[in-house]
Amino acid sequence: MFESIAVVGATGAVGQIICKLLEERQFPLKRIKFLASERSAGKRIRFCGQEHVVQKLEPGAFEEVDLAISSTPDEVAGWFVPEAVRQGCVVVDESACWRMDPNVPLVIPEVNGEAIRRHRGIIASPNCSTTQMVQVLKPLHDAARVRRVVVSTYQAASGAGAAARRELDEGARAWLAGQPYTYHEFAHPLAFNCIPQIGRPKHRAYTSEEMKMVYETHKILEDDSIQICPTCVRVPVANCHSESILVETERKVTVEEARELLAATPGLVVVDDLDRKQYPMPIHGDGRDETFVGRIREDLSSPNGLALWCVSDNLRKGAATNAVQIAEWMVAHLVEPRCESSS
Amino acid sequence: MFESIAVVGATGAVGQIICKLLEERQFPLKRIKFLASERSAGKRIRFCGQEHVVQKLEPGAFEEVDLAISSTPDEVAGWFVPEAVRQGCVVVDESACWRMDPNVPLVIPEVNGEAIRRHRGIIASPNCSTTQMVQVLKPLHDAARVRRVVVSTYQAASGAGAAARRELDEGARAWLAGQPYTYHEFAHPLAFNCIPQIGRPKHRAYTSEEMKMVYETHKILEDDSIQICPTCVRVPVANCHSESILVETERKVTVEEARELLAATPGLVVVDDLDRKQYPMPIHGDGRDETFVGRIREDLSSPNGLALWCVSDNLRKGAATNAVQIAEWMVAHLVEPRCESSS
Repeated sequence: MFESIAVVGATGAVGQIICKLLEERQFPLKRIKFLASERSAGKRIRFCGQEHVVQKLEPGAFEEVDLAISSTPDEVAGWFVPEAVRQGCVVVDESACWRMDPNVPLVIPEVNGEAIRRHRGIIASPNCSTTQMVQVLKPLHDAARVRRVVVSTYQAASGAGAAARRELDEGARAWLAGQPYTYHEFAHPLAFNCIPQIGRPKHRAYTSEEMKMVYETHKILEDDSIQICPTCVRVPVANCHSESILVETERKVTVEEARELLAATPGLVVVDDLDRKQYPMPIHGDGRDETFVGRIREDLSSPNGLALWCVSDNLRKGAATNAVQIAEWMVAHLVEPRCESSS
Repeated sequence: MFESIAVVGATGAVGQIICKLLEERQFPLKRIKFLASERSAGKRIRFCGQEHVVQKLEPGAFEEVDLAISSTPDEVAGWFVPEAVRQGCVVVDESACWRMDPNVPLVIPEVNGEAIRRHRGIIASPNCSTTQMVQVLKPLHDAARVRRVVVSTYQAASGAGAAARRELDEGARAWLAGQPYTYHEFAHPLAFNCIPQIGRPKHRAYTSEEMKMVYETHKILEDDSIQICPTCVRVPVANCHSESILVETERKVTVEEARELLAATPGLVVVDDLDRKQYPMPIHGDGRDETFVGRIREDLSSPNGLALWCVSDNLRKGAATNAVQIAEWMVAHLVEPRCESSS
């Protein structure tokens, strides 16, 4: 149903995984084009046995395109997405630019896929730190209504881009050799350190990354009454974000019930056996499309609380996989690609 | 007043710092001896310009010793501490063995130094993850009564010992070279990973490290009514533990008031300017004796909550420094070294 597809930001860390997923999952399409910044235009991408030349992202690029899956900086999404929509293209956008727009559904297909039906040309994919948390909250919210969340994140270098991931490696090498190293992608050295700031100051001493976890969770779960206190921290992990989450629900959920609810939720895998030292960890989540949850236990500090730990590949379910799943949802549910409001 | 001192476990990661601190801080003493396991006996330690041979820790070692500062595994402290006390020695013990004994004060000098007066031969120093948290909680508790704490830790390799710290380096080197590496000190690879387990399973799916943060905090603050939910995580940091802490108090404490209270507390340093990217980080805490606190902000999820982030050198204030400060407190407050109950 989408005859012609574009991957925007195709040469980036997330874009490359989008291409790989479209290929591996045999996404139905007739034509595909790969778009990127001027700097990357001219590079070559191999897709389904054919070589493609990456084209420059420019206003006219979407005339023959039905669907764009896009991972670009926010300011790029700011100008090109409306252009693409005007040309009749549906855009699944990874950037933060359109997520909070009331006309744009913000979607995790397993959580609120139906919201896609309301799209007017743009469907946004949430921030990586939000996605894995909301996947865990959703079944608990449905069963017992989530009232409050306290979350501390352990976020990987790859979330800051491919260059940031390389910097972690180079910085670690320099540290081990006792050599100085200058970071450009991080405000402070990341190797063998923790940086308790992701994003810029945004709201009452919370960062933009932290406020995304509040605003986006409210939007996806369609419930602004959930109280959320996030602390976002960059740790010297290559890939996969981890989160320590405390959830309070209106009705008490036992550990056993929580484990059953989470295990029955598509996209989640429960790994929870402390006696056997089994719990989610970044090195196991890397390259996987699921979100892993463990260390599920009763909160010692409130009657209706649960503490747990979740890990997800921030480049995959936190970005590329979720975007491709949104596109797959549209194919499966026959959403009209060229929506009326944008024609 | 302590004529003769012993450092027990003198060759270990913490023991070495204890020796350095006694020297640097010119701790008053006439004689010093260095004790360690059979494996380390015979090694040499330089102290105040003189070379000393490390002696084997054995039952008769404390006959002429007034004060022992000790950092050993729990099982070692289990047998030697009562022996030392029987011989009239006061023991400041870093191990977890005696901390929860009702006859043993558990002390952070800036927090509850007066408890030292009640000692009966043993004074325990708290677990590293507890110490830095309680330092932060204490002024808030005094001012507004702490009711609840949710804490997620980011703990350094050095907390598992000197060998563990070396393993992180070696594991990181192997990872960067694409080589396999077998960890012995950790159940899972630590380099570029997070391990959400420290200690053994202890209580309702919480680990021993997590429960230390509950039990020890209650004992030090003499208030079992404080509700605490801890999650302890090992991160690939060489040294210095970080903690993301949410504190709820009976009376609301504003950010400004909290900052003033914390800044006025001996042993704490407030580093809190998000706009200038200033906050505590492990690389800055390394080698320092203070605990650093920042990212102080109003909890977005409760009316009387505060969120904050603290960092401390787990080998220093989390261990060696605190033990030496306990000994210094005794010197300053003229506590009789050979206490009556043990003579």
